[in-house]
Amino acid sequence: MSIWEKNIRKVVPYVPGEQPNMPGMIKLNTNENPYPPAPGVIKALQEFKADKLRLYPDPTAKLLAYTLADYYNVGKDQVFVGVGSDDVLGMSFLTFFNSGKPILFPDITYSFYDVWAELFSIPFERPKLDHNFRIVKEDYYKKNGGVVIANPNAPTSICEDLDTLRDIIEHNQDCVVIIDEAYVDFGGTSAIRLINEYDNLLVVQTFSKSRSMAGMRIGYAFGNEKLIKALNDVKYSYNSYTLNQTSIILGMEAVKDKGYFEECTSKIIKTRSRVMGELKELGFSFPDSKTNFIFATHESIPAEELYTALREEKIFVRYFKKPRIDNYLRITVGTDDEMDALIKVLKEYIYNKK
Amino acid sequence: MSIWEKNIRKVVPYVPGEQPNMPGMIKLNTNENPYPPAPGVIKALQEFKADKLRLYPDPTAKLLAYTLADYYNVGKDQVFVGVGSDDVLGMSFLTFFNSGKPILFPDITYSFYDVWAELFSIPFERPKLDHNFRIVKEDYYKKNGGVVIANPNAPTSICEDLDTLRDIIEHNQDCVVIIDEAYVDFGGTSAIRLINEYDNLLVVQTFSKSRSMAGMRIGYAFGNEKLIKALNDVKYSYNSYTLNQTSIILGMEAVKDKGYFEECTSKIIKTRSRVMGELKELGFSFPDSKTNFIFATHESIPAEELYTALREEKIFVRYFKKPRIDNYLRITVGTDDEMDALIKVLKEYIYNKK
Repeated sequence: MSIWEKNIRKVVPYVPGEQPNMPGMIKLNTNENPYPPAPGVIKALQEFKADKLRLYPDPTAKLLAYTLADYYNVGKDQVFVGVGSDDVLGMSFLTFFNSGKPILFPDITYSFYDVWAELFSIPFERPKLDHNFRIVKEDYYKKNGGVVIANPNAPTSICEDLDTLRDIIEHNQDCVVIIDEAYVDFGGTSAIRLINEYDNLLVVQTFSKSRSMAGMRIGYAFGNEKLIKALNDVKYSYNSYTLNQTSIILGMEAVKDKGYFEECTSKIIKTRSRVMGELKELGFSFPDSKTNFIFATHESIPAEELYTALREEKIFVRYFKKPRIDNYLRITVGTDDEMDALIKVLKEYIYNKK
Repeated sequence: MSIWEKNIRKVVPYVPGEQPNMPGMIKLNTNENPYPPAPGVIKALQEFKADKLRLYPDPTAKLLAYTLADYYNVGKDQVFVGVGSDDVLGMSFLTFFNSGKPILFPDITYSFYDVWAELFSIPFERPKLDHNFRIVKEDYYKKNGGVVIANPNAPTSICEDLDTLRDIIEHNQDCVVIIDEAYVDFGGTSAIRLINEYDNLLVVQTFSKSRSMAGMRIGYAFGNEKLIKALNDVKYSYNSYTLNQTSIILGMEAVKDKGYFEECTSKIIKTRSRVMGELKELGFSFPDSKTNFIFATHESIPAEELYTALREEKIFVRYFKKPRIDNYLRITVGTDDEMDALIKVLKEYIYNKK
């Protein structure tokens, strides 16, 4: 091995989730929204002047940032935008978690937190969720270098109430607390209202789920002006122009259409509720979901077997071969037709096993 | 100051270059291309199916990466793509410069190198260019943690020949050598042909200049499979889905149209040559430019004064108030009409001073 190879940053290579692409498949594995982006987004794309692409985008992405500030009723200097919430979260880890003390996040949560910690050499500890996959808030009272809570959590789909979060934040006034709300728009309660109470609270959201724009890569964060300035300072020191011209304009259009947003999220919540009933009849159980997915386990058939059976019918759901959750399927809530197809295959498979 | 504030990553806040936006202005300050992207790019944008935006992009961006591999005649596993060359370069600093030894780059060069080094706590040294702004290759013979050379260099516009680069690479087999070729398509010689000779050589390019797509944020790098894999491992550990759906498709279309690419770069080279003649008559001197800008100094009038005078006529050029280059203007080569307007204002100003 040459000397330059020895100085390569050590990472456990992260393998991005499978992105199958075959005719007739039903894709319920990456929590994408089954409905298209808002009509205004489609119109803005069609009317986009390609000549503009020769110019650098506005580095502050202010058309988008200010639209978000308006919509969520926060200050213009309380918004940060990035290339998907992964970029926003990764940059937050780099910016805020430099104390040398371990940061804390649950043992079962979004699979990128430990990856970012490893990448930036941040020590971490992972307090266990209880046997119902609920946060034990006392676990977050100890000295630490930061706290990260996905709420609702993935892949469990559970949303903790604001009192629990508030208690955790109260006990952590010396570090930055990040609440990752990628899934909050499907029935959860946002902590945005707390950013004016706690200057160390950062709330992160995304366009990938509720706004049907995973393909556009837009994430954002709300927090105290000082937090946002620190994030922007680091962002400008890495790449000033992150969001491209189309992302800024299309993102803005997506936020503007509150009616369409509410219509889509309501449809998904309605479908979720109906499908949860049908899964129950088939012998599944699951936590109460406040997300656009259901985290389900079957009373007799192993999850991995069901995962494979569905796959053979070109229905893709997510299966994690990890301790404590290796008997669960994470099933994205798709359209009613897609969910009917899922239920049909499951019903037949389970019936034939009896 | 609260404790969490003390643990914020220390950066010297980088201020992105001015992006003026006023009617009738002539923008020659950020080396953007004055011509629109290729017709295929415009068509692909118009025909883009917005419904696709609800899905995550391909994390490997292979449509784009493979098109680049084809065009530049390198292996499919010898290409890395990112959100502008700033993302590619920043990620390269993070990935390769972990030896603890100082990395080397010239005292006068792209202003982000020291910013990334500061951000990632990488020590660095800046050997001086000679009085003609040329690299002194012997300065790069000493022990170091990596070498970064912009070629052609910015803001000097000078392109060193391949023999000089080869000599520097030969003397640096224990570290990664990055050649940043943001401007190479305007008459420079690329080091791409050297990647199969030197497994520690990374060559970085961008869509922002010669391909008229600064607004789209696409950069890429060529190198040995091992270098590219290391970069991808770090990229996937930070943000799997960096290039959005539109960037991948539009970028691919830009690469496909070789004819348009050559036509645009030739036009810029021709305008550059003509304008250099006219500037000379006005008392300017400059290095021989192999870029889409001219780095000019006047025989009697200070650069800052000219910068201000042009600005008052809504003509924006770049002025760096920095040691050794504070009597120079960096003037982007725009359309012929834009350059005529520039020459006219300069001529009148200089005439009135006499």
